[in-house]
Amino acid sequence: MGGEPAKWVSMVTARTPTNIAVIKYWGKRDETLILPINDSISVTLDPNHLCTTTTVSCSPSFDQDRMWLNGKEISLQGGRFQSCLREIRARAQDVEDEKKGIKIKKEDWQNLHLHIASYNNFPTAAGLASSAAGLACLVFSLAKLMNLKEDNSQLSAIARQGSGSACRSLYGGFVKWVMGKEDNGSDSLAVQLADEKHWDELVIIIAVVSARQKETSSTSGMRDTVETSALIQHRAKEVVPKRIIQMEDAIQKRDFPSFARLACTDSNQFHAVCLDTYPPIFYMNDTSHRIISCVEKWNRAEGTPQVAYTFDAGPNAVMIARNRKTAALLLQRLLYNFPPQSDTDLDSYIIGDKSILEDAGIKDMKDVEGLAPPPEIKDNIPTQKSKGDVSYFICTRPGGGPVVLADETQALLDPLTGLPK
Amino acid sequence: MGGEPAKWVSMVTARTPTNIAVIKYWGKRDETLILPINDSISVTLDPNHLCTTTTVSCSPSFDQDRMWLNGKEISLQGGRFQSCLREIRARAQDVEDEKKGIKIKKEDWQNLHLHIASYNNFPTAAGLASSAAGLACLVFSLAKLMNLKEDNSQLSAIARQGSGSACRSLYGGFVKWVMGKEDNGSDSLAVQLADEKHWDELVIIIAVVSARQKETSSTSGMRDTVETSALIQHRAKEVVPKRIIQMEDAIQKRDFPSFARLACTDSNQFHAVCLDTYPPIFYMNDTSHRIISCVEKWNRAEGTPQVAYTFDAGPNAVMIARNRKTAALLLQRLLYNFPPQSDTDLDSYIIGDKSILEDAGIKDMKDVEGLAPPPEIKDNIPTQKSKGDVSYFICTRPGGGPVVLADETQALLDPLTGLPK
Repeated sequence: MGGEPAKWVSMVTARTPTNIAVIKYWGKRDETLILPINDSISVTLDPNHLCTTTTVSCSPSFDQDRMWLNGKEISLQGGRFQSCLREIRARAQDVEDEKKGIKIKKEDWQNLHLHIASYNNFPTAAGLASSAAGLACLVFSLAKLMNLKEDNSQLSAIARQGSGSACRSLYGGFVKWVMGKEDNGSDSLAVQLADEKHWDELVIIIAVVSARQKETSSTSGMRDTVETSALIQHRAKEVVPKRIIQMEDAIQKRDFPSFARLACTDSNQFHAVCLDTYPPIFYMNDTSHRIISCVEKWNRAEGTPQVAYTFDAGPNAVMIARNRKTAALLLQRLLYNFPPQSDTDLDSYIIGDKSILEDAGIKDMKDVEGLAPPPEIKDNIPTQKSKGDVSYFICTRPGGGPVVLADETQALLDPLTGLPK
Repeated sequence: MGGEPAKWVSMVTARTPTNIAVIKYWGKRDETLILPINDSISVTLDPNHLCTTTTVSCSPSFDQDRMWLNGKEISLQGGRFQSCLREIRARAQDVEDEKKGIKIKKEDWQNLHLHIASYNNFPTAAGLASSAAGLACLVFSLAKLMNLKEDNSQLSAIARQGSGSACRSLYGGFVKWVMGKEDNGSDSLAVQLADEKHWDELVIIIAVVSARQKETSSTSGMRDTVETSALIQHRAKEVVPKRIIQMEDAIQKRDFPSFARLACTDSNQFHAVCLDTYPPIFYMNDTSHRIISCVEKWNRAEGTPQVAYTFDAGPNAVMIARNRKTAALLLQRLLYNFPPQSDTDLDSYIIGDKSILEDAGIKDMKDVEGLAPPPEIKDNIPTQKSKGDVSYFICTRPGGGPVVLADETQALLDPLTGLPK
């Protein structure tokens, strides 16, 4: 080409799932290393519907570390990003790519600058664990770029330092974040309890109740809880350890009634300790409460749980149905109680795995308007229908862990300039 | 008058206050005797604004026990009414009224039937402790009618069997319900910590958020909490005993910052254990949460609490301001955030002690519309104003205990027929 020697750009693109805790993480014993006060267990969500895609690149032509999130440049100066970068660089290995003429010695990584572009296919900071998927993807893709020898569990201990729950996004299926005992956090990492195929009947429906930025960040929220709640230590020391054992057992045996009971009660207890914080923290709102009532009434009417619900640090409901049939019945109930606003079309109101909508026999808005009240509310006061309380629903399922995307067309950075496409 | 001998009607009318717990009662150790799992402390509200008036009467002409609540006849067959009636009749004494020619021997009370009429000057079962005032008034007025020798503390142990928190309505001012140790409940009764004059600066503003019947009754709610919450026993055994000592001390010293902190955190913890119940119980709604945020923001901005809040088994906020000046500032903030609907006049939107409105410099709706945002929200996103979320506000203060109304024109029953006027 020109007279100048071509400066190479080395690049890796990876996709990492988000996850939803069914036994909750709330409260740290070490703020810097992000060490939790109890174990937690999560379900990884199908990255086809909720994921972060990250491209990481390095080049001798880059003069500083830079990052773009959803197309907008953001600062990498935060302590948590810096912890992750430092930990990964410390483990970097030699890299050689003969085809591209790239040769990097492990000591070179300290001086090579990085360009990072990350994209969430769902709203950021709306209580959908965007930071979990984001930090996991950052660590995973950098580990591939720098040829780390560590396995995903060891990488999870690095991702943990970026965002606690990120460590659980290093695996698919059902994942446990072991709190660990060491002061340096080396044993506070994620382990896979079972992969996504172990219990593949489950269907997950997320009600996105609000996509506004949340009021209280989880970081400051959980710090306030640990400092002021008179119940959090009892929860962490006495309640959660038993629930962890029971939840592992429920997952192992695919025992849906136990799984549902544990997930619901633990979500409720997490929100209870938020309320026991001073000043109190409210993440759920009236719409969240109405979704819980809808599920609880149905579960009681059936005599055994059909659906579990869990809420993270926001008003969105994550509902886990025992199988496709109950998911279709759940979707009917949700659409009956929370119909879309008149200017919203069904195709943008139910996103993700739309086949659940077919199973529910709903093809268009006329079918939604024609939905009969579910039998369990017949003898009660009719529920008030409020259009617009739910922004949209995402239909998904338990999914797989991080993957490298070999197809360069999926990269978020230009392979020649290393700048966002 | 006629040839028949005039059959006499003996009658007593009394007025009893309601009360608001500042250290909450939630959970029984004995369902029948209504024995609580922890002590509680309440403030008695001024009966001029919130009270039950009850007329009790007996006559040889009555052929059954009958009761009217707010003008409508209701059944007295409930176990709790029956417990109170049985306990009071067992302690009845001789009564003689020479002027009216009435002479009742104590053993006659077992055969004399009662007519009872009761009236609340506030919405029944809207989370404003109507059953507390009602049962306390029933017991107090019957005790006077039947000439019982027991003092108010001993009467409180009878009222307790009608409705737990009723026992705290036998005194004015600041009242402690001692949980007691005896299996028969004889030592589970109310004692006065201080009368209403002890701390007469306090001003109370109640936001009536909803006057609908509440969804979960306290009776079934607290039973479900005791059966299912993993936190309630820790609260009752470890948290509340310390708070009781601190609250008694705060009241004794008129230490408003401690009083406010304890009242707010204990209200929040009560709602936290409700949320930790399975299925979860929600008493507060989005409007309740917004009221809390409004108070918390202000308290933080001032550096020391100006107002305490507490919520019973419903969405209504009871706010306790440290003095009249802060009450006026609070009312400005409340009216700024929760203006009345356009068809509501100010006179019916702020009821009770309307002089607080004058102190706040608000004479008409124009003054409400002209309210400037409080300084503490200036650098924040402007709060969404929602008209109609609050039905009305009641301005009141700590008040006195039960009294007999000697003036017969205030009786709710006709002195000749013993039927509702």
